[in-house]
Amino acid sequence: MILRILKKFQRISETKDGVTRLGLSDWEDKAHAAAASLFGRSRRVKHVRDRAGNSFILNGDGKGRYVVMGSHLDTVPNGGWLDGALGVAGALAAMQRVLKKHRDAPIAVAIWADEEGHRFGNGLWGSRAFVGAVKAEELIRLKDRDGVMLGELLVERGLQKRKPWRSRETGELEAKFVYKAPIEIAVYAEAHIEQGRRLLDAGKRVGLVTHVAGVRRFRLESMGEMNHAGTTPMRERRDALVPIAGMIGRLPQLVRGVESGVVTCGAMEVRPGVANVIPDRAWAIVEHRAATERDQDEISRGLKELVATTGPRAPGVAIEIVQISAVRPTPMSEEVTARLEDVCRKVETESMRMASMAAHDAMAVARVAPAGLFFIPSLKGVSHRSDEDSRREDIQLAEDILYRWALAEVERVL
Amino acid sequence: MILRILKKFQRISETKDGVTRLGLSDWEDKAHAAAASLFGRSRRVKHVRDRAGNSFILNGDGKGRYVVMGSHLDTVPNGGWLDGALGVAGALAAMQRVLKKHRDAPIAVAIWADEEGHRFGNGLWGSRAFVGAVKAEELIRLKDRDGVMLGELLVERGLQKRKPWRSRETGELEAKFVYKAPIEIAVYAEAHIEQGRRLLDAGKRVGLVTHVAGVRRFRLESMGEMNHAGTTPMRERRDALVPIAGMIGRLPQLVRGVESGVVTCGAMEVRPGVANVIPDRAWAIVEHRAATERDQDEISRGLKELVATTGPRAPGVAIEIVQISAVRPTPMSEEVTARLEDVCRKVETESMRMASMAAHDAMAVARVAPAGLFFIPSLKGVSHRSDEDSRREDIQLAEDILYRWALAEVERVL
Repeated sequence: MILRILKKFQRISETKDGVTRLGLSDWEDKAHAAAASLFGRSRRVKHVRDRAGNSFILNGDGKGRYVVMGSHLDTVPNGGWLDGALGVAGALAAMQRVLKKHRDAPIAVAIWADEEGHRFGNGLWGSRAFVGAVKAEELIRLKDRDGVMLGELLVERGLQKRKPWRSRETGELEAKFVYKAPIEIAVYAEAHIEQGRRLLDAGKRVGLVTHVAGVRRFRLESMGEMNHAGTTPMRERRDALVPIAGMIGRLPQLVRGVESGVVTCGAMEVRPGVANVIPDRAWAIVEHRAATERDQDEISRGLKELVATTGPRAPGVAIEIVQISAVRPTPMSEEVTARLEDVCRKVETESMRMASMAAHDAMAVARVAPAGLFFIPSLKGVSHRSDEDSRREDIQLAEDILYRWALAEVERVL
Repeated sequence: MILRILKKFQRISETKDGVTRLGLSDWEDKAHAAAASLFGRSRRVKHVRDRAGNSFILNGDGKGRYVVMGSHLDTVPNGGWLDGALGVAGALAAMQRVLKKHRDAPIAVAIWADEEGHRFGNGLWGSRAFVGAVKAEELIRLKDRDGVMLGELLVERGLQKRKPWRSRETGELEAKFVYKAPIEIAVYAEAHIEQGRRLLDAGKRVGLVTHVAGVRRFRLESMGEMNHAGTTPMRERRDALVPIAGMIGRLPQLVRGVESGVVTCGAMEVRPGVANVIPDRAWAIVEHRAATERDQDEISRGLKELVATTGPRAPGVAIEIVQISAVRPTPMSEEVTARLEDVCRKVETESMRMASMAAHDAMAVARVAPAGLFFIPSLKGVSHRSDEDSRREDIQLAEDILYRWALAEVERVL
């Protein structure tokens, strides 16, 4: 079943280079609708959308507390067919199977909107909205590459009613985010591909996530002076690129000796970007992740030190570092994890406990309900790529674990 | 007179951030037409355009050898009002004054097309075409950011007749560049702003260029593997950006101890350019300049060594360096330089001999005729910027020197 549903999702917005189904787009909406259509013939199962763009496929009237499984259906550009979709397809298949046994089960599938945050650089959009972690200022602060504010897009997509407005008193932009969660989550579980190779290396089929690594993101920016690349002697230059580039070249040193730490610069730009003009502006986004706050602090300290020691070597260039986001390491529910572990034992599958270095919706849900997260192995350890893949039997296993877990949870409350 | 002409040019395509008049654009054409219109009432002076987009404002029938002054009217985006325009306006004013004395003078102003080479990353386009230094393959190889080939643009602008075509035999793209120089240059002089601060620092009003520094341009490119920035451990990464960035950070070391050497990275890009994705591709354009070939060789050697030593430190990442252009240091005509020096002495202006670290059209012209080049000081030493400026009396001095030089040259042949 899960494979059939996954194929259905894949056909929506598949390109020759993978799947491109950005969050808060018509393609994402189509995928949500396709998920709901699986229950098209049922009178008891409803498709409820909230004002963040999340979908809930729920059995019954939406009252009371639900056993919920879920994940997301948006992808990065030219992404894979499993990231997010696996968890949703598995949840849908599991819910169908549970309903065959208990037609009144308080069970639901949550499809979180815009988990990747590709367009606005945020991430976990829908699940954060659900748990009350979205602040109105985010709707103004976040803009896409064309300068469209998140708050404007939400209105254009019919999710919110009022675009950001300029206050008559202060002249500042203001915004409001109106949100009401459609259901209450009693307990939550999510299946996801690992996106790494630790399971492959350890020879295990399931990774039970005990906690999700924290992520901090910084913007390094330098301002120098534009000038002619021929006629400006080296000692008179205020080259904005050289110091930023030098720091990026040294990033890997920051995590040497920090267990579980990674640091990445994925985006940078230089202006004006002309071969014979000394750049007056350069910026880079640097993020680091670690499983503990102590490790996060150590890497952040190293990064700030790098900026502090680079500045004096670039006279006349102003170098700034601004933290743009911070997510703490999040523990998953020990209770849910133990139950998932039980299920693995019952189906005679070897599991291991591990940290997740990537953020997942379960991280946000953990703020309001006991939440569990488990991984199946990614072939080659890759993801966010068109060749992202997992073994068919591991994909089926994800459905089976979700089913058995949900069935037990439902039977506990029925 | 020169100031009035400069203001006229400035009004064409002036924006709030300087002057944007790219080469091979309608704006450049308008400026050429404005230059020709100065002689609107004259029956003897013609505006001749060639098939590269150059304009020649020439007195008489175009036969015989001409005393020519000139420069260019294209700018970089948000450039200044003097780079190029000074030399053209000074030449036009000087030609008007010479014609008042000798109505039959074999004198002409050359306005070279697309000197900056902004759109296609080349430079000295028109003057190189004039001296036969443009090869047909350049029309295919050079593309703008939208993928338009130079050879296509030339046809769209009515300059060439046939777009690049695919050979039936080899399947390769082929192109032809048809060109015939409209006049023969007997001797050439060009005035330009210095674009540096050596004249200011030395307290001189005129810099006589003895030779133009050579420029070599390279493309550094690295190919790694795209992957998730959280789940991919540092030791398993094939990050394309870190090694390229590290090299750019070390560029200034390459010219330490190299007299007159400069090295610059003005353009770089990283793909896919997403905060949480390890880049699989990064490239940078690096150029260096020096006054002697020996110095050029030394800097090139250092750059290649940098690549060779960086590679082994980035396992799994392929780093390439490709030389994309090379211009040797070019000596200016000693005879023309000495005559310009004479003129300076006669108008009681202190001059100094110097190398030019920037390329100028005179460099190309020097291949076919004795050519001289002189600078007036740039305030603050800046150029390619909206605040590029020179003292009004120095601007007038440029006209006066061109006038006296051209008058003497004309009187020598009349």
